[in-house]
Amino acid sequence: MKLYTYFRSSAAYRVRIALNLKGIAYDSIPVHLLQDGGQQLLPAYRAVNPSALVPALDDEGAILTQSLAMLEYLDETRPAVPLLPADALGRARVRALALAIACDAHPLTNLRVLKYLKNTLGLSDEAKQEWYRHWMAEGLAAVEALLAQGDPAGVGLFCHGDSPTMADCCLVPQVFNAQRFAIDLAPYPRVARIHAHCAGLPAFAVAHPSQQPDAE
Amino acid sequence: MKLYTYFRSSAAYRVRIALNLKGIAYDSIPVHLLQDGGQQLLPAYRAVNPSALVPALDDEGAILTQSLAMLEYLDETRPAVPLLPADALGRARVRALALAIACDAHPLTNLRVLKYLKNTLGLSDEAKQEWYRHWMAEGLAAVEALLAQGDPAGVGLFCHGDSPTMADCCLVPQVFNAQRFAIDLAPYPRVARIHAHCAGLPAFAVAHPSQQPDAE
Repeated sequence: MKLYTYFRSSAAYRVRIALNLKGIAYDSIPVHLLQDGGQQLLPAYRAVNPSALVPALDDEGAILTQSLAMLEYLDETRPAVPLLPADALGRARVRALALAIACDAHPLTNLRVLKYLKNTLGLSDEAKQEWYRHWMAEGLAAVEALLAQGDPAGVGLFCHGDSPTMADCCLVPQVFNAQRFAIDLAPYPRVARIHAHCAGLPAFAVAHPSQQPDAE
Repeated sequence: MKLYTYFRSSAAYRVRIALNLKGIAYDSIPVHLLQDGGQQLLPAYRAVNPSALVPALDDEGAILTQSLAMLEYLDETRPAVPLLPADALGRARVRALALAIACDAHPLTNLRVLKYLKNTLGLSDEAKQEWYRHWMAEGLAAVEALLAQGDPAGVGLFCHGDSPTMADCCLVPQVFNAQRFAIDLAPYPRVARIHAHCAGLPAFAVAHPSQQPDAE
């Protein structure tokens, strides 16, 4: 198993966590999103992933794209340590939490969007920061509200039930991003507690950007 | 089955297609995204879906959020007329195509983002249109490239194999949006051909925004 990854990529971070949770050994192939005008845009990487986004996963020559599709695939082909609960409604809830992050929160705050705001729209740093804070807050508020539905008392250590799922694989990298931009997590107590608990577990800790071979 | 929907919502459109493909009868409950300051933001709707986004799906009182989680749930609980292929790599490819639209293309061009560009950033109509065209083109190019990998000859009538999948449920609404903004589809021949084929099928045609009870 080989993972084309960038240490700070949220989407790659999700897959690193899933691989670690399942105990799957893999080789990291770094793709630097800022060097060479973005190595993900070069022909060598496009030959691997034509959508020119990180990560890509190589399972014995079969190439997979899109982090959530990788998590589903890993769960189907390596079912030990499941990333989804056993019941259909539980799976729907976990997927909804993962998608609330991957579809609603993260796409508006990632690197290519921030570059467009600065380079094409010519936004000031302040306006760019405000954009980031706005969409991060919208995203975290939606996740907190979904978490509250399933955990009114606010005591859960994971997004769903007593073990990590795809939702936690998405939540932890999103909070890492929020912390980089000094977002106050106080309005999102469930998000903050789940992050703190997960971050201390080896599978999550080893997947942290600072622990990657391409970390700066 | 009840679907909280808005006729022009891409995400609701995806679920309408899936329900029709599976022959599941449902009641539409319109949530107007522009009236009353956005009906999805009102307490009545937040009580249904606390993330305040359309659609939501009510299956005998169980509420689901996030369109792709609904598609997975429908496929698990109503497996007749599957929306995913039988093999794990095929499923990963279909999910990757669906996610390339739902995570990478659509979030940057939806209504709440366009409102922010206009109302908060004060962008001109021209700059807003350029934003739309830019991200729509990025998204469609990525989808076209992924389609080309599986269909080098460019003859497929669906995104994957010979029957509609989750990927087609996502592609058709995205192309509807592109057409509303007069995006030229010539650079994306596979996308255009698949859209034209699917749009003519009853399950897709009946799900079209113009055919909804809340259409304007």
